[in-house]
This record gives sequence, structure tokens and C-alpha cells, in this order.
Amino acid sequence: MSTIAPTITLQEIEEAADRIRPHVHSTPLLSNKTLNRLSGGSLFLKCENFQKGGAFKARGATNAVLQLSEEQKQNGVVTHSSGNHAQALALVAQSQNIPAYIVMPQGAVAAKKRAVAGYGATIIECEPNLLARQEMAKKVKQETNATFIHPYDNKQIIAGQGTVALEMLTQNPALKTIVVPIGGGGLVCGVAIAAKATCPDIRIIGVEPAGAADAFESLQSGTFVPSTDPQTVADGLRASTGELTWPLIQKYVDQIITVTDEKIMDSLRLVWERTKLLIEPSSATVVAALESPDFPKECLEEPIGLILSGGNVDLENLVWNSKK
Amino acid sequence: MSTIAPTITLQEIEEAADRIRPHVHSTPLLSNKTLNRLSGGSLFLKCENFQKGGAFKARGATNAVLQLSEEQKQNGVVTHSSGNHAQALALVAQSQNIPAYIVMPQGAVAAKKRAVAGYGATIIECEPNLLARQEMAKKVKQETNATFIHPYDNKQIIAGQGTVALEMLTQNPALKTIVVPIGGGGLVCGVAIAAKATCPDIRIIGVEPAGAADAFESLQSGTFVPSTDPQTVADGLRASTGELTWPLIQKYVDQIITVTDEKIMDSLRLVWERTKLLIEPSSATVVAALESPDFPKECLEEPIGLILSGGNVDLENLVWNSKK
Repeated sequence: MSTIAPTITLQEIEEAADRIRPHVHSTPLLSNKTLNRLSGGSLFLKCENFQKGGAFKARGATNAVLQLSEEQKQNGVVTHSSGNHAQALALVAQSQNIPAYIVMPQGAVAAKKRAVAGYGATIIECEPNLLARQEMAKKVKQETNATFIHPYDNKQIIAGQGTVALEMLTQNPALKTIVVPIGGGGLVCGVAIAAKATCPDIRIIGVEPAGAADAFESLQSGTFVPSTDPQTVADGLRASTGELTWPLIQKYVDQIITVTDEKIMDSLRLVWERTKLLIEPSSATVVAALESPDFPKECLEEPIGLILSGGNVDLENLVWNSKK
Repeated sequence: MSTIAPTITLQEIEEAADRIRPHVHSTPLLSNKTLNRLSGGSLFLKCENFQKGGAFKARGATNAVLQLSEEQKQNGVVTHSSGNHAQALALVAQSQNIPAYIVMPQGAVAAKKRAVAGYGATIIECEPNLLARQEMAKKVKQETNATFIHPYDNKQIIAGQGTVALEMLTQNPALKTIVVPIGGGGLVCGVAIAAKATCPDIRIIGVEPAGAADAFESLQSGTFVPSTDPQTVADGLRASTGELTWPLIQKYVDQIITVTDEKIMDSLRLVWERTKLLIEPSSATVVAALESPDFPKECLEEPIGLILSGGNVDLENLVWNSKK
């Protein structure tokens, strides 16, 4: 892929922050003694699990929806997603009183379907594969004239997600590292652009599950490696980085660390037990990364921000490691 | 029982607040749109699950330990508990650098044992019944000269737990009702005394699991009915009210509502899913109470404080209702 990195500016992210402020939560940045003791670092947990809809996704979705024209708003929005973007878009559409059409794969987690339906969106089922999802979304778009809102390969979405970093650096200007999970890359790109424009020396560390390490492999090889068959317990991170996000990752992310599903679930459990924050496996990756031999130990000497990206857990199918 | 209600004054609770302030967290009082919508009320959740040691118990334990003489501190403290009081006392003892001896029944939850041991306390195992626990604690006390700190039938403990109400009414002076779980009664008594001394018209509603409803039965019959064989998923509420707490409950608590284990687990799951707060079953009772036909509907017209008493869940043995 030879896309030129698109320009998303600090100004666009600051404008997004002003735009979405009345509609989303400013989430707390918490510390926890036990996690500090175990990691040897000074950690600050950005609790996007407390965000509306249970994940950071409400930021980007709100930023995109609020920029629709009146005519576009009448026709509503469409996306395909089995997860947090679906919930966020449905929630924002409801609050703006516009129609939302969400293409969800058959077999999607019941709790997520319940939440999407609870926000008043129309759910359209399709075969559980990416092609079928894309085709169905296209069909819905043609039939309804709804605007397609991509979960991450969309400048307004990326700018919205970048507001997480602006908030963190206001809450603690001393942060020298931010650790971010990478799925499609919308969050890490927005955060990296916002953080580096504000604090040029800040280090951005992305984290991927070992079974969905397309960005890691792309960064290692210097060329875009799309995700083909992601296998990980972190359901929010099964997406492939895209045409917009990959060049931005290459440009702005300092390092990507991979973590195994076992370490993700160990960390999830640690966070649940010791912080009482209900986070989803995607969020636990950033805690697991601290234990990786690849994690730069010098980062532990100064304040580190960890983005707990969401808390939408499938409570019906929790799997703990049996070794405990 | 014809005990005269002991005097615990607002001043003692205010002094406890000053005493423990440097050692415990001031926990947040949060609201949640979904819970408000579902209940039709204006709810304020006091997050004692974020308290040190994961439960309100750190307040009372800190208040008691800080009032020990230097000689008493050298000999340390002893208690019997399978749960949150054990963790809290161990934690406070560690922070004060004094020995703690915790009598725990065989078969106590592994996570709780891990936490107690992690705080550096000495765990002494005993047979899993109340008599064995009391006998073993007595024996340890004789051998070590440690001071016995009862989990609730202790004025300093009750005064410490009462600081929860002072904090809530500072955070939201408009609260007209406080809903509190009842186990041994230390929390509800401290809260009721503090709240009514501050706002005489405030209503205090206690909640008990249907399978551990000794305070409810006592209040109904007007005479003390001790708990004999409590059966409930809310492990923190299996205690019997005591000589100190029962007369105070009779004097200060306006109403007690009972909730079934099924409703408790439904509410726990609702809170987890929609607020991302990891709470234990004892905490979920106060949310379940809102749905009870016995809950006074007029209370929903003004702000209600709900005390989420703790978040120490046995993650290894989570049981969901199968009907979902």
C-alpha cells in the first residue's frame, strides 16, 4: 500500500473535543497501588470503560454523526460491526434522533445485540464474515441512503478517538508514555497524533494480541500486512488496520508489543480483582504489555498512561485460565 | 434482649472521619442513566467497592486500630472473618506495621485468603462454623495478647462505617433516602446515626437477602431473632446482627426489605453490564431492593443514595442465572 498518510491535525482533534464534549463523558484517570507495586511503575488508568456505551467508540461516533448535514441526518447512518462501534453508533444516533442500521453477524454476542437493540437501532443480520458484512452494509446504504460510518478508517472517527489523549494529558501533564490497544487502529492513531502534537517527546506504545498482530507484523516488515484470520479472546481487537490507519501507525507509533491470550486473561482478572474496574479483554492487553520482556523498562521510571478502552464483556462466556 | 441502645454520637463519627481520612479513600458517588431509567429514580451510587481492601470495612478497622495504645499495637490485632473485615483488618494492620492474626474457616474463598496473606497477616485456619471461629480467636488472643476487633459489635467499628454517610451527604446534600445492605449491622447503624443526626428527615432503608433475614424478622417481631443458618449468595451478609447493632437498628432503621438470591444476581449482572462497576453480591442487594413491591415508591421522587458496600467477588465461582 502506498497511501500518503492523510493529515489529521491537532486542531481537528481539539475541534472534535469541543464538538463532542456535551455528549460524552470525561472519564476518570485513576491510579492503583497494587498495580503500581506489581509493575514497579507509576500507572494512570484512563477509564474508557465508563464512557457512554461502555467504550471509547462513543467519541469517534459522536464526532462523525454531529458533522452530518441535515439531509444526511434524516437518512440516518449505517455500519457493520459486531461490537463496540455498533453500540456507540446506535447510542449516538438515538441521542440525535436519527435512524441507525447496524449490520451484525449471525452469532454475535447476545449482550451486544441487546444493547444495540436497546438503543433503538435496526439490526440487520448477515453471514459471519467480513465480505458478507461489507456487502450487506452496501445494500442497506443503497436502500436507505444512510451514511456509512466506518469504525476506524474515517478521519472524523480518528479525530474523535484522539480526544482521549487530550483529556489524559490535561488530567496528568506528566505522562511520558501512553500504552494503547490496537484493533483497527482508530484509537492509537488519534491518540498518537494528539499526544505527540501536545508533548513531542511522549512515547506511544501499541499493544496487539499475539493472534491478531497485523500491525506488529506490518511495522516489523515495513509493509502493510492485512489481518486474515485473527484469533484472540480480545474480541475488540480482531479488526485489521486499514488504508487510513496503517500509514499513521507507521508514522506515529513508537513500538508495538504483542501479548498472548493467557496473559490478557491473567491481566483482566488482576484488574477486576484489585481495581474493581470491569474491563473487557481488549483493555487488559495494556496491563499485560507491562510484563512483556519487550516493554521498555525505562518507561517505568516516569508516569505511564494506560488506556482501558472498554468494558463490554460477554459475561455469559467468561473463560478463566484453569491453572489458578 | 433488653440491651439499652449504646450511645454512638455524630461527634464520634465526625472524629472517626478526621482520624481515618489520611488512611482511606473518599470514594466517588456516581450516577448512571440506565439505572435511573430502569428504576424511575435519581440514584447515587456510593462506590465503596473502590475503598481500600475493596470494601467499606477499611473505615471501621482503621478507626479501631488507630485508637489502640502503643502497647496494644505491639501485640497486634485478632479477628475471625471469612471476608471483607479480615482483608480490611489485615490491610490496616500492615499499614500501621502491627501484627494481625486472622482466623479463617477452612474452605474460605481462595481469593480472599490470597488477599489477606498478601497484606502480611497470619492466617489461622479453623472448622467452618461460628463456634469454632470464636474459640480459635479466643485461643489466639490468649497466646498473643492481641486485641480482638469484632467485625461489627464494636463502637469504634460502627463509628468508622458511619463515615460513609457523612461523605455521601457532603457529596450530595439532597439525598432523602439511603439504602444500605445489612449483614452484622455495623454499616447500617453507623450510616443511620450519622445521616439522621445530619438530616433528621432522611429515610434509612436496610436490605437483607431473603435467606439471611434476621434483622428483618427481628424488626417485624419487635424482638431479637438471631441468624442461625443463613443461606445466600451474598457472602458478606451471612452474619447475624449483634448485641450492639440490633438495638441501634431497631431505633434508627425505618424499614428493612428482603430480596431473593435470584434478584440479587440479576441486579449484580445489571450493574456489571451497565455501570462497569465490579461489585459483590452484597452490594447488589440495594439495587435489587428498588424493584421490590415493598420499596416505598415515593422515595423515587427524590435523590436516593445506594451504598455499594464492596467489590470482593469470588471470580472463580461466579454463578449466573441460567434463564438468560
